[in-house]
Amino acid sequence: MHSETAGIDLNSDLGESFGRWTLGDDDALLSIVTSANVACGFHAGDPTVLRTTCEAAVRHGVAIGAQVGYRDLAGFGRRFIDVPPEDLTNDVIYQIGALDAFARVAGDRVRYLKPHGALYNAIVTHEEQAAAVVEAVLRYDPALPVLGLPGSAWLRRAADAGLTTVGEAFADRAYTPEGTLVSRREPGAVLHDPDDVARRCLSMARGEGVTAIDGSTVAVRAESICVHGDSPGAVRMAAAVAERLRGAGIRLGAFVG
Amino acid sequence: MHSETAGIDLNSDLGESFGRWTLGDDDALLSIVTSANVACGFHAGDPTVLRTTCEAAVRHGVAIGAQVGYRDLAGFGRRFIDVPPEDLTNDVIYQIGALDAFARVAGDRVRYLKPHGALYNAIVTHEEQAAAVVEAVLRYDPALPVLGLPGSAWLRRAADAGLTTVGEAFADRAYTPEGTLVSRREPGAVLHDPDDVARRCLSMARGEGVTAIDGSTVAVRAESICVHGDSPGAVRMAAAVAERLRGAGIRLGAFVG
Amino acid sequence: MHSETAGIDLNSDLGESFGRWTLGDDDALLSIVTSANVACGFHAGDPTVLRTTCEAAVRHGVAIGAQVGYRDLAGFGRRFIDVPPEDLTNDVIYQIGALDAFARVAGDRVRYLKPHGALYNAIVTHEEQAAAVVEAVLRYDPALPVLGLPGSAWLRRAADAGLTTVGEAFADRAYTPEGTLVSRREPGAVLHDPDDVARRCLSMARGEGVTAIDGSTVAVRAESICVHGDSPGAVRMAAAVAERLRGAGIRLGAFVG
Amino acid sequence: MHSETAGIDLNSDLGESFGRWTLGDDDALLSIVTSANVACGFHAGDPTVLRTTCEAAVRHGVAIGAQVGYRDLAGFGRRFIDVPPEDLTNDVIYQIGALDAFARVAGDRVRYLKPHGALYNAIVTHEEQAAAVVEAVLRYDPALPVLGLPGSAWLRRAADAGLTTVGEAFADRAYTPEGTLVSRREPGAVLHDPDDVARRCLSMARGEGVTAIDGSTVAVRAESICVHGDSPGAVRMAAAVAERLRGAGIRLGAFVG
Repeated sequence: MHSETAGIDLNSDLGESFGRWTLGDDDALLSIVTSANVACGFHAGDPTVLRTTCEAAVRHGVAIGAQVGYRDLAGFGRRFIDVPPEDLTNDVIYQIGALDAFARVAGDRVRYLKPHGALYNAIVTHEEQAAAVVEAVLRYDPALPVLGLPGSAWLRRAADAGLTTVGEAFADRAYTPEGTLVSRREPGAVLHDPDDVARRCLSMARGEGVTAIDGSTVAVRAESICVHGDSPGAVRMAAAVAERLRGAGIRLGAFVG
Repeated sequence: MHSETAGIDLNSDLGESFGRWTLGDDDALLSIVTSANVACGFHAGDPTVLRTTCEAAVRHGVAIGAQVGYRDLAGFGRRFIDVPPEDLTNDVIYQIGALDAFARVAGDRVRYLKPHGALYNAIVTHEEQAAAVVEAVLRYDPALPVLGLPGSAWLRRAADAGLTTVGEAFADRAYTPEGTLVSRREPGAVLHDPDDVARRCLSMARGEGVTAIDGSTVAVRAESICVHGDSPGAVRMAAAVAERLRGAGIRLGAFVG
Repeated sequence: MHSETAGIDLNSDLGESFGRWTLGDDDALLSIVTSANVACGFHAGDPTVLRTTCEAAVRHGVAIGAQVGYRDLAGFGRRFIDVPPEDLTNDVIYQIGALDAFARVAGDRVRYLKPHGALYNAIVTHEEQAAAVVEAVLRYDPALPVLGLPGSAWLRRAADAGLTTVGEAFADRAYTPEGTLVSRREPGAVLHDPDDVARRCLSMARGEGVTAIDGSTVAVRAESICVHGDSPGAVRMAAAVAERLRGAGIRLGAFVG
Repeated sequence: MHSETAGIDLNSDLGESFGRWTLGDDDALLSIVTSANVACGFHAGDPTVLRTTCEAAVRHGVAIGAQVGYRDLAGFGRRFIDVPPEDLTNDVIYQIGALDAFARVAGDRVRYLKPHGALYNAIVTHEEQAAAVVEAVLRYDPALPVLGLPGSAWLRRAADAGLTTVGEAFADRAYTPEGTLVSRREPGAVLHDPDDVARRCLSMARGEGVTAIDGSTVAVRAESICVHGDSPGAVRMAAAVAERLRGAGIRLGAFVG
């Protein structure tokens, strides 16, 4: 999927509250981003949260994506689970179907899929689990675009299966000279200066490349940029990114219709 | 919904296994019944069980219904939970959507809804929860018929809201002279003789009424008869009911198309 | 259990975070209260939260109590569940045992029990569930004091069974002339002025009675006062209560040794 | 821990039912084995199951062990989860504490620990998780013996930490010439002939070694033999093993006092 216009999508994780526990400032984010990765109940998000989030996304004109994860509330989907592929396919179908019900109740539908947390990380290289998630999308709706890390097994297998793939970049993460993410365990992996982050996002959106951790310039091709919203500082940074992009004449819009 | 032909539906609970734990002989039941109340993951049924059950139902030409329940795996949905109505509506939407995904993957779709266990019992009289489940069906798909106890708040409110309602009788339960079920705490509440049960079901299907627990005859109007399958004896009884009905020229068929 | 000295206990709910989700300012509260009602994993509190909370309580010299609840993470234990009494007894034993492990690892042990949320409310009048919780304490350790609402079925049955009972008052709740709590659905049920709340707590501690919602004076006998900590305002209110009591020469101390 | 007498322990997994779902014939097994690995609620076993199983074990004079696992009901603890070590330590402490409550209510206490399923397999080689489980036992009670696979990281680290370690053999599994288990993916990995299995167990108990899958003889040193009970055939096999051992004058007894 190639964007002809000088535009880019901003995506963020939403709907990650659960019962009594709230997380993230969804209202603030929905006025900034263009695509909402909505949790589906396995790692976060109870049914009322899903409903509320889908309705708010529709009100803001933000595209709803299924943020599917491992069945692991205690670990927030951040721990790899060695789920057999056939079960993983069904776990993903279950989650898309549940969220789609609320997207439809809100007057829209699920427009794309983005894996969450440890599942996102696993299927960068885990071929069987990557294939299992692809299989879920093929079974549920092969017209559903999928979002992920450029170069991952996940996007490669999705493309091979005929799915529409969308590569994303991370606003606040450092890149290696090879264009992969610097591990969170390394110093400097996460960027904290909103101004610096906004400037990098503008470079990404213009296709100019960004400065890698070693000072070289690296190409980061992305049709969507992931921003976070789980702290007041994160929301401010997301707003700064959006403002900088718009100020530079970059159109912000969902990668889906 | 009134059946013009001399036919009746047989419904049963299926898909109630979970992970390592199996329950019920789904394969045997699917060759007997015409409607399958498939668990949706809140009281029973993991995603792989839902997938397998929906695919088997489609193979057998059995209609798939959403057997929605309270979120209570430990209690198998058999314990009343005082869920606020707005949350209950969303819990039900979530479950229908999840099951519908598998019904569609199997080439069909969810055709009706039947509440399970303590939720089924609660909404016989609990007006707010009855209204909450009705609201869920209205939001998800107002064309979806709903199955329940004749005379319940649930079916009354569903009919008032314009939903198609289907009353069911219980093959193996004794009735009071007023046509309600004898409480399981009373002696004689549950019938165990397959021959007797099959004869009563024939009377129900013919609209002749059945013998109540006091010996009087009571009208039991039902478009569907509920049979169980959670023991070898239960499966034999269900088979006896189906055989008796067919032998008497009663057509067995789902109440939905 | 009658307190000879002019002292009183302050108790509060702690350890109610779960996985990625944090709730309450436990550190602030532990420097204010004398008894910590620690969640046990059924309505809130994962094992690492239990461990951390018990270790912090021991560091602050705060008594650890088991805050047992219904198995209901999605509802935070705030929804009545019709658990059969024999299962409820075992659910409570399980929770006490789990928390006691961490209390012992931290160098102390569980010193008392206080039911949480909907269970707390249910056993004010629900005789079978009240008896079930009493039975759990009897089986686990009949020397464990129990905390609850004066006049409840819970404390009455506990006392009848020979358990040590401790009545508590609520710092920020209005009372009826009869000494019961004004329902949260009534206007004025919850008090918001820290100064007013602190003054009332001093009256309670002195046994002088407090002004009921109709302006009359009502006796509120309590050996412990419950304060909340789930918002910055709540923590400030708890601090104001403690300060006022100490300033008036009331000794703050756990009701258990 | 070296057994001076010509005796051996038989251990088996018990208490693995959950709510409505039953698994295994615990009553039959308790009249055969000498040590019961009782599930603790994370992969199987609700509180009522734990209570019932502990009480039955005490009645039969069978030692109670904590069969701790990953928090994964849907996967029955059979899927590796990449739990951070500090959380895993606390998950294990939680489970031991919960089970110990029921063991004490039944008049005994938890006598040993045996990891379950994927955790058992993981800590054969996963050093961090092995260390995390050792740490849990050290914190809870360093006098608690631990059961596991001879040669595993788990038993090595446990021994290094001063814990009492007990190696076990598997009645129905084929061994390599090196004394490790033949992978379940290989043909012949699981033995099905009760007579053959009983004979091999006798050789193990006598320290004579068993025939490896290549026909050579391999030493299998074990103080305990694991038998299964999750099918009627498995129970018959366990009974055959016990009978053969007793018939040969081998004393069956728990490895703990």
